Amino acid sequence: MVIHGPNLNMLGKREPDIYGTTTLEEVNRRLKNLGDGLNLEVETFQSNHEGRIVDKIQEAAGTCGTVIINPAAYTHTSIAIRDALLATDMTVIEVHLSNIYKREAFRKKSMITDIAVGQICGFGVQVYYLALEAAAKILKCAISS
Amino acid sequence: MVIHGPNLNMLGKREPDIYGTTTLEEVNRRLKNLGDGLNLEVETFQSNHEGRIVDKIQEAAGTCGTVIINPAAYTHTSIAIRDALLATDMTVIEVHLSNIYKREAFRKKSMITDIAVGQICGFGVQVYYLALEAAAKILKCAISS
Amino acid sequence: MVIHGPNLNMLGKREPDIYGTTTLEEVNRRLKNLGDGLNLEVETFQSNHEGRIVDKIQEAAGTCGTVIINPAAYTHTSIAIRDALLATDMTVIEVHLSNIYKREAFRKKSMITDIAVGQICGFGVQVYYLALEAAAKILKCAISS
Amino acid sequence: MVIHGPNLNMLGKREPDIYGTTTLEEVNRRLKNLGDGLNLEVETFQSNHEGRIVDKIQEAAGTCGTVIINPAAYTHTSIAIRDALLATDMTVIEVHLSNIYKREAFRKKSMITDIAVGQICGFGVQVYYLALEAAAKILKCAISS
Amino acid sequence: MVIHGPNLNMLGKREPDIYGTTTLEEVNRRLKNLGDGLNLEVETFQSNHEGRIVDKIQEAAGTCGTVIINPAAYTHTSIAIRDALLATDMTVIEVHLSNIYKREAFRKKSMITDIAVGQICGFGVQVYYLALEAAAKILKCAISS
Amino acid sequence: MVIHGPNLNMLGKREPDIYGTTTLEEVNRRLKNLGDGLNLEVETFQSNHEGRIVDKIQEAAGTCGTVIINPAAYTHTSIAIRDALLATDMTVIEVHLSNIYKREAFRKKSMITDIAVGQICGFGVQVYYLALEAAAKILKCAISS
Amino acid sequence: MVIHGPNLNMLGKREPDIYGTTTLEEVNRRLKNLGDGLNLEVETFQSNHEGRIVDKIQEAAGTCGTVIINPAAYTHTSIAIRDALLATDMTVIEVHLSNIYKREAFRKKSMITDIAVGQICGFGVQVYYLALEAAAKILKCAISS
Amino acid sequence: MVIHGPNLNMLGKREPDIYGTTTLEEVNRRLKNLGDGLNLEVETFQSNHEGRIVDKIQEAAGTCGTVIINPAAYTHTSIAIRDALLATDMTVIEVHLSNIYKREAFRKKSMITDIAVGQICGFGVQVYYLALEAAAKILKCAISS
Amino acid sequence: MVIHGPNLNMLGKREPDIYGTTTLEEVNRRLKNLGDGLNLEVETFQSNHEGRIVDKIQEAAGTCGTVIINPAAYTHTSIAIRDALLATDMTVIEVHLSNIYKREAFRKKSMITDIAVGQICGFGVQVYYLALEAAAKILKCAISS
Amino acid sequence: MVIHGPNLNMLGKREPDIYGTTTLEEVNRRLKNLGDGLNLEVETFQSNHEGRIVDKIQEAAGTCGTVIINPAAYTHTSIAIRDALLATDMTVIEVHLSNIYKREAFRKKSMITDIAVGQICGFGVQVYYLALEAAAKILKCAISS
Amino acid sequence: MVIHGPNLNMLGKREPDIYGTTTLEEVNRRLKNLGDGLNLEVETFQSNHEGRIVDKIQEAAGTCGTVIINPAAYTHTSIAIRDALLATDMTVIEVHLSNIYKREAFRKKSMITDIAVGQICGFGVQVYYLALEAAAKILKCAISS
Amino acid sequence: MVIHGPNLNMLGKREPDIYGTTTLEEVNRRLKNLGDGLNLEVETFQSNHEGRIVDKIQEAAGTCGTVIINPAAYTHTSIAIRDALLATDMTVIEVHLSNIYKREAFRKKSMITDIAVGQICGFGVQVYYLALEAAAKILKCAISS
Repeated sequence: MVIHGPNLNMLGKREPDIYGTTTLEEVNRRLKNLGDGLNLEVETFQSNHEGRIVDKIQEAAGTCGTVIINPAAYTHTSIAIRDALLATDMTVIEVHLSNIYKREAFRKKSMITDIAVGQICGFGVQVYYLALEAAAKILKCAISS
Repeated sequence: MVIHGPNLNMLGKREPDIYGTTTLEEVNRRLKNLGDGLNLEVETFQSNHEGRIVDKIQEAAGTCGTVIINPAAYTHTSIAIRDALLATDMTVIEVHLSNIYKREAFRKKSMITDIAVGQICGFGVQVYYLALEAAAKILKCAISS
Repeated sequence: MVIHGPNLNMLGKREPDIYGTTTLEEVNRRLKNLGDGLNLEVETFQSNHEGRIVDKIQEAAGTCGTVIINPAAYTHTSIAIRDALLATDMTVIEVHLSNIYKREAFRKKSMITDIAVGQICGFGVQVYYLALEAAAKILKCAISS
Repeated sequence: MVIHGPNLNMLGKREPDIYGTTTLEEVNRRLKNLGDGLNLEVETFQSNHEGRIVDKIQEAAGTCGTVIINPAAYTHTSIAIRDALLATDMTVIEVHLSNIYKREAFRKKSMITDIAVGQICGFGVQVYYLALEAAAKILKCAISS
Repeated sequence: MVIHGPNLNMLGKREPDIYGTTTLEEVNRRLKNLGDGLNLEVETFQSNHEGRIVDKIQEAAGTCGTVIINPAAYTHTSIAIRDALLATDMTVIEVHLSNIYKREAFRKKSMITDIAVGQICGFGVQVYYLALEAAAKILKCAISS
Repeated sequence: MVIHGPNLNMLGKREPDIYGTTTLEEVNRRLKNLGDGLNLEVETFQSNHEGRIVDKIQEAAGTCGTVIINPAAYTHTSIAIRDALLATDMTVIEVHLSNIYKREAFRKKSMITDIAVGQICGFGVQVYYLALEAAAKILKCAISS
Repeated sequence: MVIHGPNLNMLGKREPDIYGTTTLEEVNRRLKNLGDGLNLEVETFQSNHEGRIVDKIQEAAGTCGTVIINPAAYTHTSIAIRDALLATDMTVIEVHLSNIYKREAFRKKSMITDIAVGQICGFGVQVYYLALEAAAKILKCAISS
Repeated sequence: MVIHGPNLNMLGKREPDIYGTTTLEEVNRRLKNLGDGLNLEVETFQSNHEGRIVDKIQEAAGTCGTVIINPAAYTHTSIAIRDALLATDMTVIEVHLSNIYKREAFRKKSMITDIAVGQICGFGVQVYYLALEAAAKILKCAISS
Repeated sequence: MVIHGPNLNMLGKREPDIYGTTTLEEVNRRLKNLGDGLNLEVETFQSNHEGRIVDKIQEAAGTCGTVIINPAAYTHTSIAIRDALLATDMTVIEVHLSNIYKREAFRKKSMITDIAVGQICGFGVQVYYLALEAAAKILKCAISS
Repeated sequence: MVIHGPNLNMLGKREPDIYGTTTLEEVNRRLKNLGDGLNLEVETFQSNHEGRIVDKIQEAAGTCGTVIINPAAYTHTSIAIRDALLATDMTVIEVHLSNIYKREAFRKKSMITDIAVGQICGFGVQVYYLALEAAAKILKCAISS
Repeated sequence: MVIHGPNLNMLGKREPDIYGTTTLEEVNRRLKNLGDGLNLEVETFQSNHEGRIVDKIQEAAGTCGTVIINPAAYTHTSIAIRDALLATDMTVIEVHLSNIYKREAFRKKSMITDIAVGQICGFGVQVYYLALEAAAKILKCAISS
Repeated sequence: MVIHGPNLNMLGKREPDIYGTTTLEEVNRRLKNLGDGLNLEVETFQSNHEGRIVDKIQEAAGTCGTVIINPAAYTHTSIAIRDALLATDMTVIEVHLSNIYKREAFRKKSMITDIAVGQICGFGVQVYYLALEAAAKILKCAISS
């Protein structure tokens, strides 16, 4: 499960000089392809609504082992998403396109990081692909142990 | 009116060792029964969406005298729910399943407490039933005065 | 585009002694009339849902030059709305019915102000009309330059 | 064991418009009656002296299973009472007549809450009776488990 | 009464790329013209001296109903100006040429805002004209009520 | 009623170079003499025990119109004394031998000042005599009005 | 030397319900009379200008032993007045008409208190007369020692 | 003089897994024995009452050269004990059974440390014996110099 | 260039249950192998000395395009390493074995993050390999552009 | 242009043990002599009035290239002086007689430093002469470039 | 193992009036003698280099059971030393010659205390000898249990 | 003695547009020449290692009267360098190439300033030469007195 937070549907359309020209659809397609190579089934979801992201996490809880989440603006404020993730047994990997520590002070606080296994940020859309690899390795460890 | 905030639909299903095995449906049923005994009509509502909770409070404003609310994750961040409650004349009673003062620092701040009559927390699902009793007593006082 | 945040649908209905008896419908009608006089097409929108306001801003991004926004409760917490506005090229004017600096401490922080051209607050529903005039003047400058 | 902190001996005598006309003696009598109905032996104690409250808690430690405490002014400053409660095995329920979160900033910090099972505040003298019910339910659970 | 704080005498002369080329004399003339149209007598005053601004407010107290003030640098530090305004019955409207919330942190605190009816900032010299309109509307309301 | 807080029984005996050689007994005698001249009956009390000071204030509440209090060390921490004073109708005058604003940071916060009419500090034992005069004048005003 | 800070020239004229009807002229006359009785020559000065108060303190430094100062709004911000007082050998007594600790948070900080002998506040115009008495006693001590 | 603060009378009886099974009586006996070996007369005192500890320090002031104090809960709040110690000429050694810097944040602040010669904490009841040795060495230095 | 900060030479030897049994030598070998596959020359360096790490960065500045750095304990305090990195043109990638946001508060502040392209943390030794991939991709982009 | 802030007219007259016996007149004369040697025309100005310093800076803006300013007490509070300097193109050099970082906490904040080229403090009246040299060098660089 | 931090090599040579005339060599010799009496082998080490102290702790980790450390200036800043100690199984005892709580604010924070068994400070060079005794007692407990 | 902190060996080589093209060797040579003219023997030292700077200060303590130090990155964190300087009798002059108050917030705190005579910053390499002149003048005063 890969969850994209608010405004990420605009990826590749807004501020291309900053975020590049890859659209969210292309990212999702690439993630599925990579998933195929790693023998992982990848589902993707985007919403601008905090409540819908909570709904989705609750739904996914039964079927998914790992969630890669880019909570975008909700990173810094959403206790509801945090609680939804806490209530599942999924492994959480947090990603951000940009290096959030270089930006406004309020972006430095994350409600998610301390319940995630790890965090990858700052490499643009590459963060998703690196996270998928990390997920695959964690899974392999878990299986082999 | 009893309002349950985000993730409370998972009650009895998630982390049963912490929250017990009573589901939200059972809580709601019990509340209605208790309400019958106290001559109070009890309506219940749950949503993971901040906006829908605001909508519901606006709707209830015309018909309800008292709202028992467990805003869950929105306790700590939702000024919108606070404003919705402020705009009504309903008596507000705030409840929490767990003792929120024993948990992460960010759970200690409540946007609701200072506009509520009172607060009950830490007794698991009992907080709803105690709140209903408190509501009944407040109502009786108001009527007799 | 004029965007009204949560609970503003209750305008003129709630706390009339504070906010007056003008309803949101009347404000919107007046704005359209004023817009006609200033040769500006005015669209209005209200929602209690943070996510829907984000959706709307994304939609408007293509067609609108200026947004007058009263984010109400979301003023103080919504990074999602901030990000949505940042991703557009629209000129943002922030308005508040009341003087937010006279109220609770948490209302003093705005997530929107530093990305807006300017702010007008404290004059009740007049803030919308003054903002429309300001928008018209900014537009005229931009055109003439 | 029900412990009343400083100035609560003035209950019903001071500021009757705020705290009502029920005196502490009447509260204590009512608690004993309720206790009889719930098959709980209720002992009550009031002191203006921090040291005496500590002495009393130490004494009670041997004989009591649960303490309902309204530490009043000592809520916010007494580490000695906290330590005395920590040194016992008693279940602690914290109560306050008023909603302490609506008052001066220094009343928001409690030295007791995070070592209590739960907290009930804001319903006037009803907080004692609700706490006794909560105590009875906790006891019943413990016995039945 | 329109009061301009320190350094505003340099308007149109300093940093024209930021503040435009309109001088304070032109602003004052325009205000008087607008005032004529609105049937308001407009007096203007500028000083770099905190004490003289206090003197002027005391003088104006007897004859003026409304003061539009751009306290400039004194916005953030002058309790003396605040006290002078508090001691009068004048309606206070605070204006700033720039959006003070976009600038240095120390410019975010205003000693005036919470005693003003409202605030207008960020629209350059337009803030004066919008404020005059707002003043006229407040006056009309007061008269008609 | 004049109340002296902890360690003031050592006055004139400890650190005579700082506090002078006047003992508390001499201060009390002088206060009674001054009281006779002003037609005020003066009672004095000293204790090192917070609880006893609370007891005394409760006792005095029935018979006294004004309390001059030097809460010494309890100035900075005692909410219990604050609450006891709040529960009475007595006029409170706060005094300190030394200028508490020149000393350790924790002595700058007073739990009493904002419920007192006024404060006198820094003039050694003279603060008691000046306070008695102030008390007499307040009384005279109240009677004549 | 008695120095009155900004806006005190309005005493008795502004907000008579709070500050009484005694004017500054009457206070000054009374101070001179009291001074005659105590064998003290009393000079008085008022200004709304921080710079002029600094000038006056420098002038007075040569001829005066004691200064009673009510710095009003400059209490909280003027390091210049503090430095002027520090540069003299005068004994400083700080007075305030109102209890500054009951008011806005920014009025709690004084730039003067820690360089004054003592402080008297909250008794209206009486603070000046009490300060004069205190000054007389300090002088008597100094002479007799 | 060795002073034990609140709840230390429970030593060896409460939480033996943390504090061990040595009772306060045994500690006191051992201190007296060690004192005999070091030619020091050891007096011990325990109270749960802040006021009584203040009384005791005042009493001891005349006869004792050194005080070893474990203020327990009062460490963090008692300015009265601090003032009592300040008013004597006794050398103060502060001890704590546990390492107070490993515990709740509010235990990190001590009102005593900066008026003590030194501090020993974290070695259980050994802290008393080490402190007695330290006291003996300080005494020897003082005598030999 | 891959730089390992203090105590990382103990990797695989200390706390194997937390950090695994892979030693730093094995990590370095693996990095070189991966580098071969990616056509990148990998040099590695470890030191417990802040000064030596600064020396090394200065040396590397001439020959290296990218530095992967795990500054370990120096992450949070070393402005010297920050300045050394700032003075070079190398692309900086920051890695941490553990999720530093789950640990002591002082580990949340990084002196490096805001001058790095991005950060990867929490995946144990995998963070180095993911970082090398990220480095390769950044390099490829730079070359192709 | 050399500007001296409040109380500097007392230089050499007040606290000679701290500030030495050189008067401001002597400093100014020496500065003019040094200026002659460096081919710089030196004008000097002192005022206790914030407003007059602002006026002077505005005046100087047209004719002066560099201002050496010792804002004294206004260093820490005057945004008006900061704004006046910002509105000119003059190079600003900030000087202080004493090392302001060794004094009261409120003297550590300067409103001027971050708009100055540099700062010299702590060397008594030498700071003026060193600043003049620095000014001469900056000027030479600018001319030669 | 006894580790002395930076500048302790100057002991007995610098500021003898504060730290006494005992040199570090004498302290080390005395520690070895005391160790002989207690049947403990004592090794000592001093360095001004943070990195070398880290190196030494890593070396000692294999052979030593207990480390007595006076980290001096590194107490307050060195996470590297903290991490090195954390990575060993050694019992840590922290000592300071002076009472660090009486000094500059930045000396109150220790990076070591919360990972140490206990702390001894303020008794000059005696702190080392008391710590050695404490170490001996801890060892005896561990052996006998 | 002139001490240059970490990364200053790169002077003239790194970021020449900011720091100019003068190398550290040239600065040192110029300092020696200036020293010759002022009859001062100048020794210079640079290190990236905090420990080595501490070693050097200890060495210099015997032979040097004055130290000019640019602690660079260690300015903000090194208590060890502060303590080394405190342990000597040398006069300390602190210099910085850039105006540290214009940069990142963490550069505003200096561990050295409050133990230095004075500080010079912001004039590039000129700060060293101005400091040498200041040193010469301080020396001359000391000799002549």
